[in-house]
Amino acid sequence: MIKVGIIGATGYAGQELVRILQQHKEAHILWYGSKSYSGKKYCEVYQNMFQLIPDRCLDEDMQKLAEQADVIFTATPQGYCASIMKEEILSNTKIIDLSADFRLKDAAVYEDWYGMRHKCPQFIGEAVYGLPEINREAVQKARLIANPGCYPTCSILTIAPLLKEGFIAPDSIIIDAKSGTSGAGRGAKVTNLYCEVNENIKAYGVATHRHTPEIEEQLSLAAGRPLAINFTPHLIPMNRGILVTAYASLTKAVTYEEVKAVYDRYYDKEYFVRVLEKEVYPETRWVEGSNFVDINFKIDHRTNRIIMLGAMDNLVKGAAGQAVQNMNLMFGLDEKEGLQLVPMFP
Amino acid sequence: MIKVGIIGATGYAGQELVRILQQHKEAHILWYGSKSYSGKKYCEVYQNMFQLIPDRCLDEDMQKLAEQADVIFTATPQGYCASIMKEEILSNTKIIDLSADFRLKDAAVYEDWYGMRHKCPQFIGEAVYGLPEINREAVQKARLIANPGCYPTCSILTIAPLLKEGFIAPDSIIIDAKSGTSGAGRGAKVTNLYCEVNENIKAYGVATHRHTPEIEEQLSLAAGRPLAINFTPHLIPMNRGILVTAYASLTKAVTYEEVKAVYDRYYDKEYFVRVLEKEVYPETRWVEGSNFVDINFKIDHRTNRIIMLGAMDNLVKGAAGQAVQNMNLMFGLDEKEGLQLVPMFP
Amino acid sequence: MIKVGIIGATGYAGQELVRILQQHKEAHILWYGSKSYSGKKYCEVYQNMFQLIPDRCLDEDMQKLAEQADVIFTATPQGYCASIMKEEILSNTKIIDLSADFRLKDAAVYEDWYGMRHKCPQFIGEAVYGLPEINREAVQKARLIANPGCYPTCSILTIAPLLKEGFIAPDSIIIDAKSGTSGAGRGAKVTNLYCEVNENIKAYGVATHRHTPEIEEQLSLAAGRPLAINFTPHLIPMNRGILVTAYASLTKAVTYEEVKAVYDRYYDKEYFVRVLEKEVYPETRWVEGSNFVDINFKIDHRTNRIIMLGAMDNLVKGAAGQAVQNMNLMFGLDEKEGLQLVPMFP
Amino acid sequence: MIKVGIIGATGYAGQELVRILQQHKEAHILWYGSKSYSGKKYCEVYQNMFQLIPDRCLDEDMQKLAEQADVIFTATPQGYCASIMKEEILSNTKIIDLSADFRLKDAAVYEDWYGMRHKCPQFIGEAVYGLPEINREAVQKARLIANPGCYPTCSILTIAPLLKEGFIAPDSIIIDAKSGTSGAGRGAKVTNLYCEVNENIKAYGVATHRHTPEIEEQLSLAAGRPLAINFTPHLIPMNRGILVTAYASLTKAVTYEEVKAVYDRYYDKEYFVRVLEKEVYPETRWVEGSNFVDINFKIDHRTNRIIMLGAMDNLVKGAAGQAVQNMNLMFGLDEKEGLQLVPMFP
Repeated sequence: MIKVGIIGATGYAGQELVRILQQHKEAHILWYGSKSYSGKKYCEVYQNMFQLIPDRCLDEDMQKLAEQADVIFTATPQGYCASIMKEEILSNTKIIDLSADFRLKDAAVYEDWYGMRHKCPQFIGEAVYGLPEINREAVQKARLIANPGCYPTCSILTIAPLLKEGFIAPDSIIIDAKSGTSGAGRGAKVTNLYCEVNENIKAYGVATHRHTPEIEEQLSLAAGRPLAINFTPHLIPMNRGILVTAYASLTKAVTYEEVKAVYDRYYDKEYFVRVLEKEVYPETRWVEGSNFVDINFKIDHRTNRIIMLGAMDNLVKGAAGQAVQNMNLMFGLDEKEGLQLVPMFP
Repeated sequence: MIKVGIIGATGYAGQELVRILQQHKEAHILWYGSKSYSGKKYCEVYQNMFQLIPDRCLDEDMQKLAEQADVIFTATPQGYCASIMKEEILSNTKIIDLSADFRLKDAAVYEDWYGMRHKCPQFIGEAVYGLPEINREAVQKARLIANPGCYPTCSILTIAPLLKEGFIAPDSIIIDAKSGTSGAGRGAKVTNLYCEVNENIKAYGVATHRHTPEIEEQLSLAAGRPLAINFTPHLIPMNRGILVTAYASLTKAVTYEEVKAVYDRYYDKEYFVRVLEKEVYPETRWVEGSNFVDINFKIDHRTNRIIMLGAMDNLVKGAAGQAVQNMNLMFGLDEKEGLQLVPMFP
Repeated sequence: MIKVGIIGATGYAGQELVRILQQHKEAHILWYGSKSYSGKKYCEVYQNMFQLIPDRCLDEDMQKLAEQADVIFTATPQGYCASIMKEEILSNTKIIDLSADFRLKDAAVYEDWYGMRHKCPQFIGEAVYGLPEINREAVQKARLIANPGCYPTCSILTIAPLLKEGFIAPDSIIIDAKSGTSGAGRGAKVTNLYCEVNENIKAYGVATHRHTPEIEEQLSLAAGRPLAINFTPHLIPMNRGILVTAYASLTKAVTYEEVKAVYDRYYDKEYFVRVLEKEVYPETRWVEGSNFVDINFKIDHRTNRIIMLGAMDNLVKGAAGQAVQNMNLMFGLDEKEGLQLVPMFP
Repeated sequence: MIKVGIIGATGYAGQELVRILQQHKEAHILWYGSKSYSGKKYCEVYQNMFQLIPDRCLDEDMQKLAEQADVIFTATPQGYCASIMKEEILSNTKIIDLSADFRLKDAAVYEDWYGMRHKCPQFIGEAVYGLPEINREAVQKARLIANPGCYPTCSILTIAPLLKEGFIAPDSIIIDAKSGTSGAGRGAKVTNLYCEVNENIKAYGVATHRHTPEIEEQLSLAAGRPLAINFTPHLIPMNRGILVTAYASLTKAVTYEEVKAVYDRYYDKEYFVRVLEKEVYPETRWVEGSNFVDINFKIDHRTNRIIMLGAMDNLVKGAAGQAVQNMNLMFGLDEKEGLQLVPMFP
């Protein structure tokens, strides 16, 4: 039984970790860390857990937790994980960080986009970008996982194969992304109130969203050279789900079958990536509650562009589910353990 | 492995059965019956099942199915199950009927409220009202289960204990119920279109809803004498969930502790019924996706009435989950098998 | 041109006042008071007003405002209006208070339910309860209007006629009410976040909601004797709208026609109250954005009870629209001026 | 008083016409045409109109209507208007067609994208594309108006100025659009049911949507040469609103001020187009219920692209409001008559 600690257990991603781990056969949560609710029963914060979780929230004493836990998930604001990281912790336990602190390999880029100094650049090199479909082997051996952002996970899995195979022009990529509101977190802000989000759609972080350099770094690796993208996220009046609609120029004339063959080659053996059938496009409702990413594409011969679409649950494959997938790999378990969640509809 | 057939597998309740049985260790679905989609792949009708269910929908040949299946769920319109029921079927297989055909013990009442002749009154006597928390032993021995309606399940579990103990006046009961839109089914009707339901609340079936006699029959059994209630359902702009707000006059002066003791006595050992803590009231979000019913109450000394509240997922405890709970009992399995679903929030 | 000041112009009710008065021919807003946004452009707080309102928000200097304005609307938290009220203000201007400060005639009841001392009991006697359909003449002569609460407006208009005519038993009234989320205000609280409200229904303030004594006071006046009710509000995942479902025991055998005749007698000449046709029940979508209250009823002979239903827009007839209706009466204008808003659907 | 007939008065766009014309001082509706509800009271189909509209729906006898009405709005399915159009009608009355029948100047393109033969190509030349901000003078003189599609209205107004000024490369345009569900109409289809749309986002008509050639034709006129675009619409779980996020490559280095100056030049005198302030991006909630289009942009120097955003109410500026704007122009009225609707929030 893996002993698990969670720092930030009362945010939406933290709670989703709890939900998933509740149904995991090999993991046991021993530490529900929460700065805001320390001392309170976890099920008073999340009443769905009533009679399922008797534990109380604990503070966020990382030092103490590292001595008890086999793995710690940090579902915390940017900067926290970097601020407490040190060899002493990593030699005692494994860390899966759901924040962005260790995702970017260049601390200067981090500081530029996140507007804060990186407190712990010495571990950036060691940290593994935890996208199993791309970095499986490195994940298995890692002590410190940078769990990918929600938009990056969906964008990278949707676009990388065609980029790697040279089917699309690296500098032509435009990503128009849409997310449910749970991605905005549980903080009490006017902009996230029901009446402000309901019956509305808006773009935000236009040309400035922090997930941009993360997507660029990973797509650059796929392309084999640096690239820059346009990335525009939108807020959708729904709880869960991300849809990525990506556009790129084709580098040559290709058929549906040729493109399909590429996707199949990359994802045939990937349980969590479902390449849909012809003319069936991803919709967030079909992946809700699950760790699946649904992907498909359409060639537009009129403009010589390809439209690539991907959908997933931002809290599962986009956060907690992927974190558990990483944990499974790090501990030599079946990668799917606890994650064979059937999407819930409606 | 229990061989399961589903008639009406492409309605919302049918699909929820499929979702739950996918995660059930002792059951295997061999027949996805669907009149509308016969011949089509099940996962084309419900894309969430892509790569999970390769089967195609079959017609609704009950005769043939009865020879192959250990149990058949009928998630079909009123009248269908009664129209095909016969000894030949029941001697071959077990039936769990999610329609109302065998719920009422008096065929005349059925015909009155449902406006159709009962095609098979001879099996009404044998049919067991499948509310395990009340009829567990009878369920275990049944061949034919009348799976309770969604509103009745929530209403009965919320009200029955106090009625049975004589705390409330039988003829004072008023049930004001609210349901998500999945309860209206997947039929293409203008009144169920997104723009008609969204940003709206309405009562429907005022003083005429068909679940009224079902609730009355079961509450009469609890009271030990006939009673009549007021029951008003409302349609809420959300997918899942039922909330019942019930009012009744107290028969005597009682304290919070006395009432709580009654609920605890009835439900302490019931895994799926959660009596909440003082001043915490049921909300549908905390049970979504699970088989739980959350219950609580408030005494109003000013009016000498008690307000009893219950919440559950209409597609799970109100339909498919309860049906699987009944199946587990009928086949001697752990009643919770496949049903330890953690409520999904948000 | 009536010079209007608004204190609390940046809450939802305040903004609805602004929207309505923008389309009012005889009124001009000269003071957009806002504690939180003082100094900021109004249209930065409510971007819908871009290029429509160039004004900046001002502080809440009541004294100064009273010298400039013909009428002041206070859309402020409980206690504020009472804390600043004095003869000096009322001799300079008229006040329409959208808070509860002057609604209850008994300061002790106010202090009991609102949990605060009433700062200005000397004006309670003078204040007129601003429900024009009931108090029209008094409103016309008033200096200080207590604008009714949203739930009370809908409940009283729905129930009062039958109570006044002795058709229903005063102590049998149960009001089960449902409201959209704008009723909860624009304060940044976790419980009002999109993901907490969406896909959920809950009761709140069970047996303790502050609108209870307000409804009781007005219904007692209608009944001609004191009465107590049960009142349970519920939060619905929609922006606007209140639906009241009220239950009462009939005092005698009555027909549909007799009851209909009562409602017609009270409301035939009331433009803003629409008594619907037989078997057509109120739905919030049909009144959204308008000052209408839609009402209907159903007699249940089985239980000898009547179900009375009312629907309205909580921000219009339940707050800002009714406030403007009161203003029109106080200034001798056509009561409908600025309020002939066609309900917007979908 | 302009005598107005509406064919297709019971669809969502038809009903919005009715709502707007109810508040129009110079127009009177004498014909509520509806194939589905002929003979039924209009307010039974749209209960919001109870006590506001006593009329019954009439059939769709265009011939007869043309003799009575000064103007006829056809809010009908594709193909209908072309199928009944003839000189006899146009010499009697004016036609504002909300369908796509006369929007495209090339019948072959129409037939290609709409998959039906054009029944009346002889009037294509005469028909004026009714986008007043671009074709004001032609509209004033027209007998037959092709009222623009919702996506095209928003896309063209957002993009055309920069294209006309040569700031963006014609073949680089990608339009990612999002629409509320009222755009899908009131037809009873499974895909538009509440539970299918709610908690979901999907793309549809990927690379095949019929509004593509309409946008291309108008943008080609702006560019002065033919161009092809990518256009991907998405369905959003909300009632009203369209957001267009458009991407294009800049043809030269430009500053924020230079681009802003272009937009201001085109729209400074356009009441219905609001160019927002720097860093404030369009959101559908701020235009709901109004005839406004809100526009803004962001230069991304990293990719040398510009992101142009536009938001409007699809039923108002995207359909009925624009149709009334055209009517006002055709009859020499103030263009804003009946259209100074303040956006309703929340």
